[in-house]
Amino acid sequence: MQNFKPRLSVEQVEEGHDLAPRFDASGLISVVTTDAGSGEVLMMGVMNAEALQRSIQTGQAHYYSRARQCLWHKGATSGLVQTTVEMRIDDDQDAVWLRVRIAGGASCHVGYRSCFYRAVPLVGDAPLLFTESEKAFDPVRVYGDAPNPTQL
Amino acid sequence: MQNFKPRLSVEQVEEGHDLAPRFDASGLISVVTTDAGSGEVLMMGVMNAEALQRSIQTGQAHYYSRARQCLWHKGATSGLVQTTVEMRIDDDQDAVWLRVRIAGGASCHVGYRSCFYRAVPLVGDAPLLFTESEKAFDPVRVYGDAPNPTQL
Repeated sequence: MQNFKPRLSVEQVEEGHDLAPRFDASGLISVVTTDAGSGEVLMMGVMNAEALQRSIQTGQAHYYSRARQCLWHKGATSGLVQTTVEMRIDDDQDAVWLRVRIAGGASCHVGYRSCFYRAVPLVGDAPLLFTESEKAFDPVRVYGDAPNPTQL
Repeated sequence: MQNFKPRLSVEQVEEGHDLAPRFDASGLISVVTTDAGSGEVLMMGVMNAEALQRSIQTGQAHYYSRARQCLWHKGATSGLVQTTVEMRIDDDQDAVWLRVRIAGGASCHVGYRSCFYRAVPLVGDAPLLFTESEKAFDPVRVYGDAPNPTQL
């Protein structure tokens, strides 16, 4: 089991070699996941301590699902497992960057390669622009009637 | 002023052209910022509605500083302004991806190019590995005696 270190000083956290992550009041840490090949941002999520420990131990991305309120082994349902090429932690150790290879070439539950498939024009009130023209997979075929995680 | 749309349905949020962001209970949305040239993840942060609106209007990254509890125009103190090349929003519209060019070639308050300057080895309890060998700037010279934002 990974033993996270206690946070003792700003210098230790920012300039040291100890993994001393800071979980928020809900016990979560932010995660950004990019494609190790293209560099594209695939998704953002959160981990609790168990998800971070399992991600380190197994080399596969585990998150905490806020919608389902449970540990989430990404790809357990869809097969779109994420294999970690590199894990990084940020200066104050409250955010994780995962560089991954994705099975099946897609990451997003809507069916696109990346969750970030729409651009926001930098002018007032212009419509979003799609940056992916085709879905990488059919979400109905992959997820069946599993509840959609998007919350309004 | 950017008028965000109300969130009416999963289909509208995931597959539509309306910018209908979901702010959390604290009024914040997650942001990941990457270097538009190298693709490297520079930082993760949050925006409130005002920061998102200003980022769209001005083309420069604005965040909400949880440490200082105020709007944060990145680079206002350090000069390390972030100019947005592209802004994206994710499937359920609770996360923003900014692709930016950074003035001064650095983003992190510790002095490194990226906030993610340490790798977490995927073996139990191994020390963090630095991925940048030299700081891009001297934080003492740039920030003087401003309070360090890192919280223990």
